[in-house]
Amino acid sequence: MTDAAVESGTGRVRLSFRPEGGEVRVPAGTTVFDAASWNGIAIDSTCGGHGTCRKCKVRVVSGDVPIDAVDPRAFSPDELRDGWRLACRAAAAHDLEIDVPPLQTRPKAALVGVGRHVILRPSVQKRHVVMEEPSLEDQASDLERIARAVDDIALTFHPAAVRTLGRRLRQSSFDVTVVICDELVIDVEPGDTTEQRHAIAFDLGTTTVVATLLDLNTGQPLAVRSILNRQQPFGADVISRVSATMLDPDALETLQARAAETLNLLAGEVCEEAGVDPAGVYEMVLCGNVTMTQIALGIDPEPLAVAPFIVAARRLPPVTAVDFGVHIHPRAPAFVFPALGAYVGGDIVSGMLATGLTRDRRLRLFIDVGTNSEIALGSNERVVATAAPAGPAFEAAQIRCGMRAAEGAIEGVKIAGDDLALEVIGDAAPVGMCGSGLVDAVAQLVSAGLLDHSGRFVPDEAAAEIHPGLAPRLVKVGEERVFVLAWRGDDPANAVYLSQRDVRELQFAKASIATGWHILLTELGVSEADITQVLLAGSFGSYLSPASAVKIGLVPKLPLPRIVSAGNVAGEGAKMAALSLRERSAADAILDEVEYVELSGRSDFNDMFVDQLAFPG
Amino acid sequence: MTDAAVESGTGRVRLSFRPEGGEVRVPAGTTVFDAASWNGIAIDSTCGGHGTCRKCKVRVVSGDVPIDAVDPRAFSPDELRDGWRLACRAAAAHDLEIDVPPLQTRPKAALVGVGRHVILRPSVQKRHVVMEEPSLEDQASDLERIARAVDDIALTFHPAAVRTLGRRLRQSSFDVTVVICDELVIDVEPGDTTEQRHAIAFDLGTTTVVATLLDLNTGQPLAVRSILNRQQPFGADVISRVSATMLDPDALETLQARAAETLNLLAGEVCEEAGVDPAGVYEMVLCGNVTMTQIALGIDPEPLAVAPFIVAARRLPPVTAVDFGVHIHPRAPAFVFPALGAYVGGDIVSGMLATGLTRDRRLRLFIDVGTNSEIALGSNERVVATAAPAGPAFEAAQIRCGMRAAEGAIEGVKIAGDDLALEVIGDAAPVGMCGSGLVDAVAQLVSAGLLDHSGRFVPDEAAAEIHPGLAPRLVKVGEERVFVLAWRGDDPANAVYLSQRDVRELQFAKASIATGWHILLTELGVSEADITQVLLAGSFGSYLSPASAVKIGLVPKLPLPRIVSAGNVAGEGAKMAALSLRERSAADAILDEVEYVELSGRSDFNDMFVDQLAFPG
Repeated sequence: MTDAAVESGTGRVRLSFRPEGGEVRVPAGTTVFDAASWNGIAIDSTCGGHGTCRKCKVRVVSGDVPIDAVDPRAFSPDELRDGWRLACRAAAAHDLEIDVPPLQTRPKAALVGVGRHVILRPSVQKRHVVMEEPSLEDQASDLERIARAVDDIALTFHPAAVRTLGRRLRQSSFDVTVVICDELVIDVEPGDTTEQRHAIAFDLGTTTVVATLLDLNTGQPLAVRSILNRQQPFGADVISRVSATMLDPDALETLQARAAETLNLLAGEVCEEAGVDPAGVYEMVLCGNVTMTQIALGIDPEPLAVAPFIVAARRLPPVTAVDFGVHIHPRAPAFVFPALGAYVGGDIVSGMLATGLTRDRRLRLFIDVGTNSEIALGSNERVVATAAPAGPAFEAAQIRCGMRAAEGAIEGVKIAGDDLALEVIGDAAPVGMCGSGLVDAVAQLVSAGLLDHSGRFVPDEAAAEIHPGLAPRLVKVGEERVFVLAWRGDDPANAVYLSQRDVRELQFAKASIATGWHILLTELGVSEADITQVLLAGSFGSYLSPASAVKIGLVPKLPLPRIVSAGNVAGEGAKMAALSLRERSAADAILDEVEYVELSGRSDFNDMFVDQLAFPG
Repeated sequence: MTDAAVESGTGRVRLSFRPEGGEVRVPAGTTVFDAASWNGIAIDSTCGGHGTCRKCKVRVVSGDVPIDAVDPRAFSPDELRDGWRLACRAAAAHDLEIDVPPLQTRPKAALVGVGRHVILRPSVQKRHVVMEEPSLEDQASDLERIARAVDDIALTFHPAAVRTLGRRLRQSSFDVTVVICDELVIDVEPGDTTEQRHAIAFDLGTTTVVATLLDLNTGQPLAVRSILNRQQPFGADVISRVSATMLDPDALETLQARAAETLNLLAGEVCEEAGVDPAGVYEMVLCGNVTMTQIALGIDPEPLAVAPFIVAARRLPPVTAVDFGVHIHPRAPAFVFPALGAYVGGDIVSGMLATGLTRDRRLRLFIDVGTNSEIALGSNERVVATAAPAGPAFEAAQIRCGMRAAEGAIEGVKIAGDDLALEVIGDAAPVGMCGSGLVDAVAQLVSAGLLDHSGRFVPDEAAAEIHPGLAPRLVKVGEERVFVLAWRGDDPANAVYLSQRDVRELQFAKASIATGWHILLTELGVSEADITQVLLAGSFGSYLSPASAVKIGLVPKLPLPRIVSAGNVAGEGAKMAALSLRERSAADAILDEVEYVELSGRSDFNDMFVDQLAFPG
């Protein structure tokens, strides 16, 4: 590790923790506290790493950490000489060996994300305090009295919380519960209300929005609801929504109102389902792609949609639930996941957090498949990410017989002997096919030889020879050749079919995605075979059949057990951030840990793209 | 200086600055930067002491200052060894000698306060920047681009400023002016608008409210207006206004609305007079007593009015002009002067700032005379302060012929030979007397022997003997003896007169104030003769005749040139805080530097009070 590497922040350092023996690699300059907590090594703390509770005591056994201004208030000169430091003030400039004392309190943990144990330390804290009443001998202000009672956190106060403070304190004889978000007091409630402590985690998708109501005392979800984004009438994808704002100056306001309506409706539903008073929900966490997030906050999305694709802010300034039109506690803050760039948004950062992509030693490939597909590759050594414009193949509207993954959609296709075996959602008669059905159909037809490697349906004569059972399904609708998946009467135009154009759309999409991860492999100087795991994420990717994904070349050709569906990782990451300030700071660190690779304007993109158009042999 | 003294923050340390030779004493722990700037010693800085611009370089010649985390970014190891430090990060734990390099820029200064030179460095800054437009090679977010262009300040952004940011930048081809309050970007304006930079300083009094519009580029006031506080119908003094809120649950809201109405009306008037667009006023500063300030923010004032007299917050959390109902720039912050206690409010802290009470070597006594009189005594060594409940003597309503200092009010009284010489406001026929007239009248009658030292009018026979010319003015109105100041017809009941009860009210008031400063003298262990200067402040105190104030024992018996009228020092302090971040931090430091002495419940108060009732011999 050279000094220059440390200075520029690109270097990584190795921290060994004793006695547990954990070893982690983090960017130089990361605090010992963050390095430990991002990696599940528990260190005492009540303030969440702000240098105020002075509980995160560790001993630096090997390596050097300068004494911070706060350290002398926590340790004797002898202890300082022995290497004792507050972990939250100890920045690791080079490799260190650290002694972690046994925990004084047993932390609660919850299992969230992709098999990740999260130590419960939400941003939202409640402290029940019974204070001495003021007297002529003790004329401390009401604020100071509370600050004295909660002296392990450097409290700040919301001005509106100060308004009612005097009366609240006196009506409850100075027996109150202080509601603290990070370090900000948003309310002071009479008596002991520590049992009620909730937050809502939102996954704000272009199509679907999901809300999870969490009990912050246990880490458990109390209710989950999802509904369609009410911005749907303005277009199915982000580009059409941005276009709407460019054509009509009032559209941004309308779209913002629709987002608020969607989020607020969900908030009301999860509270009602769980029987929780919305005023007892003190925070919301939101992850979404940058376009959805900016529109929901009324930030002009136009610069996202035109080259050079500029985001207003990778890290947004502090906002509140009110800014999102969500009616929970009136002063509830909103934590918004930061974004890597215009097309690798907070949802992907959230997904990386949930999968531990930047913390795991294994080389893993993360793909969130969609109209815009986000791809990340790496391990705790280094992670690179990019966005691939996959086109409309995964949008139901652009596929002749396409539909959302709803009742009647063909979601799986398999050639079984002379016939097709279809999986249809809801055990109904097929009325269309969703994205996973499309990928399955193409993969099966390529395997059977009815689609050639260039993506063209083979001529009728060849089909009859190769697969006499299926050949009659190759027919024409108008001028276009199609393959019928399910007949509905005699007219092929009424059938559920796969058209030649559908195949072309999918080819473009998968070529774009495959070009993305090929470029990332080149960036890291590794090969397909080095990949330990492929994580298929997002509402679309999670339903893809790994075998079909390999077959069409959407993902690298690896043994199937290495290709896993990760589910709604964005939503999982949002929950983690609601439950843990440490995970939240880990999410923030991802912005510095992951390098963004821009594909547009790259000279080698077109050549590689053309190479990827064909289906693998 | 013992370590214990340093630790508890009560000790003071001595800093000598070279080559200018200034020497100052400040509380241990104060930064070198603050110590210098509070005392008019200029050190370069553009960030205002936040450790981000790295310009406030000084060399510690004698004494030891630990290296701060930021220092290595500003200095080479050799320079660090030579004692170079950033002044804003260098806390003085003991006596130091400091070399200050010559300024790189010539700071503008303005003369404000009581003859104080204030170096112009308002919280509000404007930076005109012309940035490179984004490209695929440089996809920094809009926020990051601005942060890069203004890299000497650690910017944060107001969420609402982010909303319009993208469009503003692009419409003006990335040629914009960034409006920064402290470190917060509240707006980004197209082109170069640095010429427009204004703030309003408010002095929010119980009776009168004054607004001064300041040009922050020059430090000059552009317009000053004062009007009566529109809360007047709810009572003349703070106690009656608090009582109103206790009797009627809706009164607080109404009173708050009246405060907003008053402040906003003034804001509109000063902007109109100066021809300044209110949107170009980026900050307001407000000083007021605690009751007025809390009511203006909608904070319940009840705990202020009943023992043990508790303030909601000595330092309020950050608030905005909108919180005060003032319509200037929609995101303009409001700086509110902190308060020492329930009855030594932000107006007094502002007055102490303007008079430099805690910075001056001379022992000075500061008295703001009013229904509640605030008294402070001290020098740069130590300052103690208290509040004396002076009763209604200075409220026109409680004096038989009392009136506000308006046209027709007797404001000065002098015995001239056999007759009285009256000073009347507006050169009109007298219709009543204001507070200064009351004090003059009593002082003159005590001098003439018509009032004895116990405060009783002498019997008629004695009067005729002592002063035959004035004796006929001693008459009866009803059962009460009065002294006629100005006849209006033959009936004394129609005259402007001083009644026996008026004299008693004044005795109570002056005894209360005198008890206050006697107790402060005892606290400091000094005597009256040690006082170099008495500052009479506030709208009432400023008009008192020093001779009369001495005569009745309201102030110590000192040579008259030592007793000076300081004028509206609260308003001056507010202007200083608008013009200088350094003065603002000096105001904040006053809370730690001044010790508050509570009079209520004090066992020696009553004895001293009775001693002070008589008029001095």
